[in-house]
Amino acid sequence: MLNGERKIERPLRWGMVGGGRTGNVGYKHRLGALRDNTAFQLLAGAFDIDPARGKDFGINLGVDPSRCYPDYKTMFQEEAKRKDGVEVVSIATPNATHYEICKAALNAGLHVICEKPLFFEVGQGEEIKALAEEKGKIVGVTYGFSGSQVLLQMRSMVKNGDLGQIHMIELQYTHGFGCDFKADQTNEGQKWRVNPKISGPSFVLGDLSTHTYYMSQLICPDMKIKQVLCDRQSFVKSRKPLEDNAYCLMRYENGAVGRMWASAVNAGCMNGHRIRIVGSKASIEFSDNQPNELLYEVQGKPIQKLIRAMPYLYDECNADERLGALHAEGLPESWANIYLKFAIAIDAKNRGDKETLKNLVYPDINAGIEGIRWVQNCVKSANAGGIWVDFK
Amino acid sequence: MLNGERKIERPLRWGMVGGGRTGNVGYKHRLGALRDNTAFQLLAGAFDIDPARGKDFGINLGVDPSRCYPDYKTMFQEEAKRKDGVEVVSIATPNATHYEICKAALNAGLHVICEKPLFFEVGQGEEIKALAEEKGKIVGVTYGFSGSQVLLQMRSMVKNGDLGQIHMIELQYTHGFGCDFKADQTNEGQKWRVNPKISGPSFVLGDLSTHTYYMSQLICPDMKIKQVLCDRQSFVKSRKPLEDNAYCLMRYENGAVGRMWASAVNAGCMNGHRIRIVGSKASIEFSDNQPNELLYEVQGKPIQKLIRAMPYLYDECNADERLGALHAEGLPESWANIYLKFAIAIDAKNRGDKETLKNLVYPDINAGIEGIRWVQNCVKSANAGGIWVDFK
Amino acid sequence: MLNGERKIERPLRWGMVGGGRTGNVGYKHRLGALRDNTAFQLLAGAFDIDPARGKDFGINLGVDPSRCYPDYKTMFQEEAKRKDGVEVVSIATPNATHYEICKAALNAGLHVICEKPLFFEVGQGEEIKALAEEKGKIVGVTYGFSGSQVLLQMRSMVKNGDLGQIHMIELQYTHGFGCDFKADQTNEGQKWRVNPKISGPSFVLGDLSTHTYYMSQLICPDMKIKQVLCDRQSFVKSRKPLEDNAYCLMRYENGAVGRMWASAVNAGCMNGHRIRIVGSKASIEFSDNQPNELLYEVQGKPIQKLIRAMPYLYDECNADERLGALHAEGLPESWANIYLKFAIAIDAKNRGDKETLKNLVYPDINAGIEGIRWVQNCVKSANAGGIWVDFK
Amino acid sequence: MLNGERKIERPLRWGMVGGGRTGNVGYKHRLGALRDNTAFQLLAGAFDIDPARGKDFGINLGVDPSRCYPDYKTMFQEEAKRKDGVEVVSIATPNATHYEICKAALNAGLHVICEKPLFFEVGQGEEIKALAEEKGKIVGVTYGFSGSQVLLQMRSMVKNGDLGQIHMIELQYTHGFGCDFKADQTNEGQKWRVNPKISGPSFVLGDLSTHTYYMSQLICPDMKIKQVLCDRQSFVKSRKPLEDNAYCLMRYENGAVGRMWASAVNAGCMNGHRIRIVGSKASIEFSDNQPNELLYEVQGKPIQKLIRAMPYLYDECNADERLGALHAEGLPESWANIYLKFAIAIDAKNRGDKETLKNLVYPDINAGIEGIRWVQNCVKSANAGGIWVDFK
Repeated sequence: MLNGERKIERPLRWGMVGGGRTGNVGYKHRLGALRDNTAFQLLAGAFDIDPARGKDFGINLGVDPSRCYPDYKTMFQEEAKRKDGVEVVSIATPNATHYEICKAALNAGLHVICEKPLFFEVGQGEEIKALAEEKGKIVGVTYGFSGSQVLLQMRSMVKNGDLGQIHMIELQYTHGFGCDFKADQTNEGQKWRVNPKISGPSFVLGDLSTHTYYMSQLICPDMKIKQVLCDRQSFVKSRKPLEDNAYCLMRYENGAVGRMWASAVNAGCMNGHRIRIVGSKASIEFSDNQPNELLYEVQGKPIQKLIRAMPYLYDECNADERLGALHAEGLPESWANIYLKFAIAIDAKNRGDKETLKNLVYPDINAGIEGIRWVQNCVKSANAGGIWVDFK
Repeated sequence: MLNGERKIERPLRWGMVGGGRTGNVGYKHRLGALRDNTAFQLLAGAFDIDPARGKDFGINLGVDPSRCYPDYKTMFQEEAKRKDGVEVVSIATPNATHYEICKAALNAGLHVICEKPLFFEVGQGEEIKALAEEKGKIVGVTYGFSGSQVLLQMRSMVKNGDLGQIHMIELQYTHGFGCDFKADQTNEGQKWRVNPKISGPSFVLGDLSTHTYYMSQLICPDMKIKQVLCDRQSFVKSRKPLEDNAYCLMRYENGAVGRMWASAVNAGCMNGHRIRIVGSKASIEFSDNQPNELLYEVQGKPIQKLIRAMPYLYDECNADERLGALHAEGLPESWANIYLKFAIAIDAKNRGDKETLKNLVYPDINAGIEGIRWVQNCVKSANAGGIWVDFK
Repeated sequence: MLNGERKIERPLRWGMVGGGRTGNVGYKHRLGALRDNTAFQLLAGAFDIDPARGKDFGINLGVDPSRCYPDYKTMFQEEAKRKDGVEVVSIATPNATHYEICKAALNAGLHVICEKPLFFEVGQGEEIKALAEEKGKIVGVTYGFSGSQVLLQMRSMVKNGDLGQIHMIELQYTHGFGCDFKADQTNEGQKWRVNPKISGPSFVLGDLSTHTYYMSQLICPDMKIKQVLCDRQSFVKSRKPLEDNAYCLMRYENGAVGRMWASAVNAGCMNGHRIRIVGSKASIEFSDNQPNELLYEVQGKPIQKLIRAMPYLYDECNADERLGALHAEGLPESWANIYLKFAIAIDAKNRGDKETLKNLVYPDINAGIEGIRWVQNCVKSANAGGIWVDFK
Repeated sequence: MLNGERKIERPLRWGMVGGGRTGNVGYKHRLGALRDNTAFQLLAGAFDIDPARGKDFGINLGVDPSRCYPDYKTMFQEEAKRKDGVEVVSIATPNATHYEICKAALNAGLHVICEKPLFFEVGQGEEIKALAEEKGKIVGVTYGFSGSQVLLQMRSMVKNGDLGQIHMIELQYTHGFGCDFKADQTNEGQKWRVNPKISGPSFVLGDLSTHTYYMSQLICPDMKIKQVLCDRQSFVKSRKPLEDNAYCLMRYENGAVGRMWASAVNAGCMNGHRIRIVGSKASIEFSDNQPNELLYEVQGKPIQKLIRAMPYLYDECNADERLGALHAEGLPESWANIYLKFAIAIDAKNRGDKETLKNLVYPDINAGIEGIRWVQNCVKSANAGGIWVDFK
């Protein structure tokens, strides 16, 4: 159980690119990173494309005014000159900028934590991976929902055979906020997501389904996709070629099958991020808006609901517990769990502790690359008319 | 609101083929047909492939011993000789026998109510339809879940534009009882369903998804499938070529899309028969294990749960209400609603009342044919490797 | 499992007093009694206080016009003259008439099935009980929700110690339809219920909580109330002295405690009929709007939901199963279960079969008397200012 | 919407008494106080009754070793000598010590944040209130669940008449962890709670129901209790005279009524902290294990579920929003909301800003005193045999 006591020798000196006042995502990073002040300290930032607004914002967060920078290049340059300069940076900017900022950060000698989807092409991912290895740095990817310890319970249940052989992986990340097509023009967060120049080759596949795909891989690490088929639509026509709805079918190498539904036009849906793993004996089902429980359905037995923090859960799950039973955790705890693991990974990397790195389960550069691969293959299938493509 | 008062001049003289003691389905027919004794009276039956057992069973239901027949041929023959012979017969036998019994019944001058899937080939359906027209008889199909008045509420909501334009149709009928592969050898009901000679070209597509497909057509009568893609699996290998799991994708003529999941190996699932209709403004979702409520999600508004029998529902829904608010209805009421409409249709047909027939919404021969078409197209797609096929 | 086959030699000849077209309750009686045509046959009735309307109604139900009577006295008199006259009568009239009709029916040599609350005073109950014994007749009481087999599962779980020692009994039967105070003037069903001359000394205590109290006794037959305290209110002032809301506390002889909440002004509540039994090890909870499931919460274990019809339930529960797993049952099945037991009791009484009568669990005259006792004690406590009174 | 930007000029210098490694509660304080590093900074502590363990713990939280004190007296003394000494202290120790530590803190010139139940006697509360006023300090009480913004939505709905006139207040805070009576000997957190010398005159009334009572007052600030009746039990006999279960009935001055159920022996219950407010037109219901939604039931309308963060909520609710729609918040956000308001109150008090203090809604010393009053009156009623007592 976690209680805020330090897991690494000292907090890491941390900076942010993006994540400013006009969006929602930066606060999630800070809630995660600064949870206990024993993993990260926020010391610098280029928070906003508008330098003045960004500086004002940083000051309001308690960052030293002299370390609130107008842009990431200046920040990397200036911080590198300081003895107490930041050693890790989080990138919370629109998709199209990830690659160049990531590269610059690594070249500036920084560890990197980056938003998803990491980049647009697997090749970019491989390049950055090689660069990070060369520089001896960590690249983490903020699949922010994936830190829920209930997912680790699911992983342990799959691993221990509680479900029997896995037959199906049902994935869904849908909401209905994209029904408001006027927001394509007015809402800052929605505007760039439907612009292929910034968002990349996909809208909901990249924005939503990369989360869920990673979570499925976290739960079932041995399941590899053999073929995928994707049919995508732009119900709001002006979004073409970007999809606001996508249906995918998966065939796994071991004979299992799966489905993914990603959508921004599932009207009215408030509970649309769900994972169901079906085995030969039992199924488990998780919804991230009920992150304190897990449905466990054994064929022929009463339906079970497992409750977060209870002693009957696997140790791997309860290791990340903070509040104890009866007390609801939410998305910030998920982010905190991921950021704590980023800190542990960075600390281990700094110390050359390969054993820790080997055993640590967190969304690393490979997870980022797999997310790119997922989107690329889906887009390829969809663009070919919704046909089966080999997953590669 | 229904209260058992007669809707037709006198109850119809009714017989059954199949539906005996060894299965579950016959009782559902009787619960539906005999709900109020004002629509049907059970007067004869060839209830069982074992004549003695069938006779004993019929007597125990109160049928005159002399009208408990060893087989359907004898029954049709003998009843035809009586002045008070049955005028309508229900067929609740395994799939492979439907066609011949149906044909024989029509030729014997009987109205027919038949289990789903009606037959194996669309051509058979067309032939029987022509025969029924020639004979001036009704053929009804017992999509037994489709009688819930909540589905009529959904139909009215779609018709009245409460959802905006329909974008997606999400269909699922899954359970996990097929996980028990030993039951393929021992359970009477399961045994024939996995035998292609009796079950036909499919297992779960025919057994499960025909229900759900019909319900979707009931709700959205104007939505026509343009193309379908089906990927099917036999997780229990001995079931090949019959599938115990099937994933389907649909493309509708108006640009909408949809999915169907049919499965007998969704381990532990007790709530797996669900329909969600997604529109441009709102979605509705129904699960047949909660037949007394309807989820209504308008984008940007609080989630609404509509409750059966409440005055705010459409008249088309409350017309089939029996119990009033607070009082749970279940599957028998669904069957009763269907059977009552069969009775009304038969009565209207007998009287030549075309107006009534035109306006009556119930699963008729066309609904049966569409179910066959659905299965045929899915099987065709699946057998071709899970490709898109034109729906015809 | 029930499938409609006869449980007694021949169906009983049955008549009704009340239960006509203007109310909802009569149809529930008929749905229960006539479920399978192997327990009861509806042959006569004095269905309505308006004789013409009652006759028209009876004819529409298929009753012989000559046996649709203007009032219960005529019916008892005329039917007694027939060789094939009714042998059992159901009374579905407003409360104040139960006693005299019941008495007349027994004196006419009829078995009786009567609505709740049976009468207004325990003394009346004792008198009718003595009369029934003298006449060799059964008096059953239609606690219509109590026939759900899930309650028998609860009874078996309590009996078998699955919950440990019983500590608490939490009872609630509340709805919000009484918020509409204008309906006191206009709605036939509501009008008489708030009139003490017809409804008796209570509104919701008699109308609602007698059901729930009986169900609690069915589940925990060994729990006897030692003291009760009731605080009641008339939120709609014109209803005084009748309460539209009542809170009760119970102290049981074995040290357990309990609560009852009865209300017609629990605004908006659609799921307000609930029973929770708390033991030293586990709790069970039932809601009659989800009659197909039972919550089973063992301290320190995952929450379990038991599903109707599954083989893991006790035999006592599954004995009353009709549809099989996955198929929702509702209130009509509950009524059917009770009516079937009335038929079995009457048949056993007619045959002098004491063994059957001893083992049959159903709401008999004693259950009716206990309901009266419950209301009397609650009213006594409330009228004394909400103090503890000895339950007697 | 909150995003971590400062609400006061600079973070307050903060220390803790108690809240060390052996319990769960301290982490909740730190999660709340340190959420954004813009309201509080943890600079000193006497975290543990075992000084060495406490020091080690403090160091692990990043506190300067020289400011990890062996006991609160030393801490108050030494910190007072520093120019940068703490200015506010949180007390997270067992009940019996609250009064003396609180007094000492105020006398040392510190603002105070204290665990509930504040003290054992209303007189103590009044004394501390006077002392705080004299010293110009704030005393806040950590009713930790009360920070959920959904409660503010409820408060606004009540205030704006959305429910009509309030008729009933249904309160419940129950769990089943006290079923494990062996933990009375072994579990540190449970051991002292069942010891009247440390826990005070009650177990569950003080430990659980004070939370819920405060939340009800937050929602319905104008509702004053006129009379209360409490019946309490010790199902685990060794806990006598402390109750592990209590039933309370309330009569409010405006004619409304209410109930409270507090229990540590509601076996298996994982969802037992619930509030339902019933009005003449509608009801609202909240459960703290689903803190992201609110049930809104208008009589005669579809059931509504309001979802946290949606624009249709009242501004008073969304003002405390952090994550935005679709993203689950949990108990830490509730604590953070309370602690942020403590900081704002302290800052306003320091600045003499009476306007801010007047409008700020948070659990202050009066809320603490009302909690004591609640327990005192309940215990008085229970000890007199469960009778009505005037609430004073």
